Amino acid sequence: MGNNEGKDKGRLGRRTFLGGLAWGGAGAWAQTAPPLAERLPAARSRSGGADMPYGQPSPHEAAVQRTVSEVAGFPVWRTPLQHQRGIITASGLHFAVHHNGVPDLSQEDVTLRLHGLVERPLRFDLEHLMRYPMVSRVHFLECAGNSAANALSPTALDETLGEIAGEVSCSEWTGVPLKYLLHETGLKPGARWVVAEGADAGSHSRSLPLQALLQDGMVALFQNGERLRPSQGYPMRLFMPGWEGNVNVKWLHRLEVTDSPAHTKDESGLYTQVLADGRIERFAFHMEVKSVITHPSGRQVLSGPHGQHEIAGLAWSGRGRIARVDVSVDGGRSWVAARLHGPVLDRAFTHFTLPWNWTGRKAVLMSRATDEHGHTQPLRSEWKRRYAMHSFNHYNAVQAWRVRADGRVENVYA
Amino acid sequence: MGNNEGKDKGRLGRRTFLGGLAWGGAGAWAQTAPPLAERLPAARSRSGGADMPYGQPSPHEAAVQRTVSEVAGFPVWRTPLQHQRGIITASGLHFAVHHNGVPDLSQEDVTLRLHGLVERPLRFDLEHLMRYPMVSRVHFLECAGNSAANALSPTALDETLGEIAGEVSCSEWTGVPLKYLLHETGLKPGARWVVAEGADAGSHSRSLPLQALLQDGMVALFQNGERLRPSQGYPMRLFMPGWEGNVNVKWLHRLEVTDSPAHTKDESGLYTQVLADGRIERFAFHMEVKSVITHPSGRQVLSGPHGQHEIAGLAWSGRGRIARVDVSVDGGRSWVAARLHGPVLDRAFTHFTLPWNWTGRKAVLMSRATDEHGHTQPLRSEWKRRYAMHSFNHYNAVQAWRVRADGRVENVYA
Repeated sequence: MGNNEGKDKGRLGRRTFLGGLAWGGAGAWAQTAPPLAERLPAARSRSGGADMPYGQPSPHEAAVQRTVSEVAGFPVWRTPLQHQRGIITASGLHFAVHHNGVPDLSQEDVTLRLHGLVERPLRFDLEHLMRYPMVSRVHFLECAGNSAANALSPTALDETLGEIAGEVSCSEWTGVPLKYLLHETGLKPGARWVVAEGADAGSHSRSLPLQALLQDGMVALFQNGERLRPSQGYPMRLFMPGWEGNVNVKWLHRLEVTDSPAHTKDESGLYTQVLADGRIERFAFHMEVKSVITHPSGRQVLSGPHGQHEIAGLAWSGRGRIARVDVSVDGGRSWVAARLHGPVLDRAFTHFTLPWNWTGRKAVLMSRATDEHGHTQPLRSEWKRRYAMHSFNHYNAVQAWRVRADGRVENVYA
Repeated sequence: MGNNEGKDKGRLGRRTFLGGLAWGGAGAWAQTAPPLAERLPAARSRSGGADMPYGQPSPHEAAVQRTVSEVAGFPVWRTPLQHQRGIITASGLHFAVHHNGVPDLSQEDVTLRLHGLVERPLRFDLEHLMRYPMVSRVHFLECAGNSAANALSPTALDETLGEIAGEVSCSEWTGVPLKYLLHETGLKPGARWVVAEGADAGSHSRSLPLQALLQDGMVALFQNGERLRPSQGYPMRLFMPGWEGNVNVKWLHRLEVTDSPAHTKDESGLYTQVLADGRIERFAFHMEVKSVITHPSGRQVLSGPHGQHEIAGLAWSGRGRIARVDVSVDGGRSWVAARLHGPVLDRAFTHFTLPWNWTGRKAVLMSRATDEHGHTQPLRSEWKRRYAMHSFNHYNAVQAWRVRADGRVENVYA
């Protein structure tokens, strides 16, 4: 903080805010302000423009977009996490994977039908769903296949964080707890599973255990305070906190209560994993503990030849709260506990930071999260030992970034 | 929940979820699903449309917009709170008050200059500001003049909640704590105030006490995970949690450290309040404890002739956390504690709910919030006794809604 901290130096000193590491050299970033010849922004000389009924980002931030690529024949839109600060993802930047495009549905087009092993099959329209009690929760949502390239590619691809691991986002979701609807239909003996189906062209459908839906399931109607967007399932989607993205069925229109899973094409095909010993991992719903350093991250360039930086990142676990995040700046030889910023919420992004004095030499940055149940991220080599060569779902290994001497940051396996 | 709750009736019963009030009659909302002749959404018969790099709300929700009106010669854009569920306001719907329009500024157009009673005047450009440690916090932001019509109009206007009290919103704000920048400049003895100035055509400027800025002030760069939007001050704004909106200077480009307030036009004019005894209330920064019932609210119509509803609303206080919200359905004769939904955060919206069995007769709904310091909302009559007839800033009286026998909801003074 330079030599000019003034009388409050003690209170605002290193130990309080910087976790025991030095915060120095910051003064080099600011320029001495010229006392007289300050150039004022031209904007001050004319009245500003009009606002609009629904606000949009600055045109100067137009490059901050989701990136898209085709995977297995369908588009995957990824959140540019390297631009995100804070735990909430802007709704316009939320990741999306569409197997059959985005259907154009109005609120009147869709009703939610509950049937199967129930006393009384029921159909709920949106107007009446809106009268049920609602809950709001901040939760991440992650595609089972997030970070697939890191799992599959023999060499680390030189991509941005969003391109590598941007199939995860975090929002405040609001909707009707499914328990109200399921109990209203009256569950018959033998009811154990629920098959959820979307109103998209491919009838995307997944089987979920009934007890878990009774405990945590929600018919989500709102995201970040407003109605769901079309690419997130408008007018409604299933939401299961911490579970892989594709079971959170979008454009939800049907829940069938059954005694066993339906083994739909979507769960017997794409969303199973082959283990190294040849066994198949099915219905592995939870997304495991994971973290990424967002700043600095792939293809960014550190400004200045060296000096003080703040390492910042996001951590999450499909099984609960984040308990700690350790950070290494030497490729895993030594680790330091990062600071977790509140609120630390259940199955939500948690923001972590650690100050770092870059000496201008090569460095390898890594983060390793641990959740409240003691689950810790594996190294890539450990993850690869568990799964077969061609498996890629549920990849949660430690992400490493190499900082080159010229400040360029690259994806690396470590 | 009807007669078909099944074996889990005890666990999902009234007391656990409904705060002691009955939840019944819900079965009347759903229709029995025809077993065979279900009409499927037409969307299922064709492939869906393409997604886009930056997502937008459904065209079917185009009516959910901010509303604008001219007040004292400048436009006021209000959040349609009657459509909001959850504590986060969609960034596109965040309220905004512009005294001089929205300047078109790029990141390169603006630097932040710190000068005045400092050892070393400094200028920070955005690239280097981004290297400082950042914090993220969920906070409400409220215009000092929010709910002015309720304060001034002799009769209650028949408007929506957003039109009445929509100059308040809640976001996750991320930025650099001002203490780092102020201490880097080196504060001189005698430094007591800071004058913050925006780069808009009118050079909007306010004086703030230095100590408060050192404790809580932030140069906000991000809102809900992405960079600030133009109408929220892109590329940067001052943010002071819990303080009236206009001191959170947008398009911030200058902070002058002084020994006393500057008495700028913006603080000596609009943002003072005349008390009933003729004294002037100046530099009353904190927004006081307040709440509104969002569902049901003004100009909504209850669906169905009678039955079970969930009263839902938002509460906030510029002085800390919400401790309780009491709700009345009989115009204030009796009150029941509503359920507060977590997370209950410091100086943020808090979501509250209470089940209500509407009998189909006239009713008057009110909510009264109390914060952790024991501050409670006044009734309108109490608020009016404190301030002069023409005062309207910092209006935080209890909002009442009359439900007519036909289900129509109206703003009313009670």
